[in-house]
Amino acid sequence: MLYESNQRSVLKAISWRTWATITTAVIVFIFTGEIALAVTVGFLGGFAKMGLYFVHERLWQRIRYGKKEIPSFVLWFTGLPASGKKELADSVYQKLKKDGLKVERLDGLDVRPLFPETGFEPVDVNRHVKRSGHLCAMLEKNGVIVVASFVSPYREGREFVRNLAKNFVEIYMKSSVENCEKRDVKGHYAKARRGEYRYFPGIDIDYEEPVNPELVIEVDHLPHEAATKQITSYLKKHIISKK
Amino acid sequence: MLYESNQRSVLKAISWRTWATITTAVIVFIFTGEIALAVTVGFLGGFAKMGLYFVHERLWQRIRYGKKEIPSFVLWFTGLPASGKKELADSVYQKLKKDGLKVERLDGLDVRPLFPETGFEPVDVNRHVKRSGHLCAMLEKNGVIVVASFVSPYREGREFVRNLAKNFVEIYMKSSVENCEKRDVKGHYAKARRGEYRYFPGIDIDYEEPVNPELVIEVDHLPHEAATKQITSYLKKHIISKK
Repeated sequence: MLYESNQRSVLKAISWRTWATITTAVIVFIFTGEIALAVTVGFLGGFAKMGLYFVHERLWQRIRYGKKEIPSFVLWFTGLPASGKKELADSVYQKLKKDGLKVERLDGLDVRPLFPETGFEPVDVNRHVKRSGHLCAMLEKNGVIVVASFVSPYREGREFVRNLAKNFVEIYMKSSVENCEKRDVKGHYAKARRGEYRYFPGIDIDYEEPVNPELVIEVDHLPHEAATKQITSYLKKHIISKK
Repeated sequence: MLYESNQRSVLKAISWRTWATITTAVIVFIFTGEIALAVTVGFLGGFAKMGLYFVHERLWQRIRYGKKEIPSFVLWFTGLPASGKKELADSVYQKLKKDGLKVERLDGLDVRPLFPETGFEPVDVNRHVKRSGHLCAMLEKNGVIVVASFVSPYREGREFVRNLAKNFVEIYMKSSVENCEKRDVKGHYAKARRGEYRYFPGIDIDYEEPVNPELVIEVDHLPHEAATKQITSYLKKHIISKK
């Protein structure tokens, strides 16, 4: 909850006075040609009005009119492991934060310790997505923008989160399994191929592509910078526009 | 995220001008005794400065100085079943909301559907408290005040949540088992005594009293209104004070 301090009002009063006193003095001088009178009226009025300005600011601090909320939303990155969700989500998060917006970042793996009993079987994964969806929706409802990145391989789980959220922006990180595997420096795909991981999307279970996502990022063809821009432009056009 | 609209600045400019023009005209009149000059200077200066005031407001909209965040906190009501946690938490929540604060309400039972696999055995209950604590802390971190009511019978679970939160206010709803049982219109205590419920705090498991809670509400002796006031006074004094 933001509020404006007394000091802010004092500083605004001083800053305003500098403009206004000069304006008054100039007008009085133009009409009377008397520089002494112009200065006297300017300064005397200035002092009186500085106090008045402060009171005026404090009264307006109590008035809500015209104080508008920037709508919050859930930005949901979905895609195969190593499709670049985390990196792109991080960039967009940083960009929004830099713009002074209130934003929270949730990554599938980082959220897991909050629900320590969650496994990696399909039913667990989907439950994890839904639980995290509740978290996203509650933050969104309270005016926080959420940047979430989850493999979230099942359509049903993603649709569940979409229905919880008010403004849901699904971003599909489109990339072939082959390219993801090339990109995978941690060797997860290799482990899955050797059978050390089970239920690995793209290897032994399907990743269900989004049917109608708000945005598709062509990961294999689009540089990181351009992808970040594609997303922030979309947000500015469709959600954050203040008009 | 709040921001101020152009309309707000226009209205502030007009409201300010009404005060300021009169002040200028009165001062010019006092110094010159000429009513026509006073009115001319007042109005002409007024018009010029109304535009200037608008520009001034828009510039200040970009300045963060003196825009302060009211600290958020986690208000955690703990106590035996039917000790009146939910009702009192609801009252405090309504009060904070009425004050224009951003506040979320979490009740132990209402949160359960978010984590559908949670049972009522001690380990489940404690896990539920901890999970909910993560939720509280994340909301608090994002500037949302949280009013939470959970039986939360274990000290360890409550301390866990305390450590997650930045400003944790533990409110112990102190009441004897006998009085809670009298208050219990839903008949949960009776069911627990008949063995239909297991792990019921106060009947077949202990409720661990807080060692050093921020507030103790003497439920059996304090009327609801007075209890609400005790809590809001505490908050105003220790957390919400804007100075």
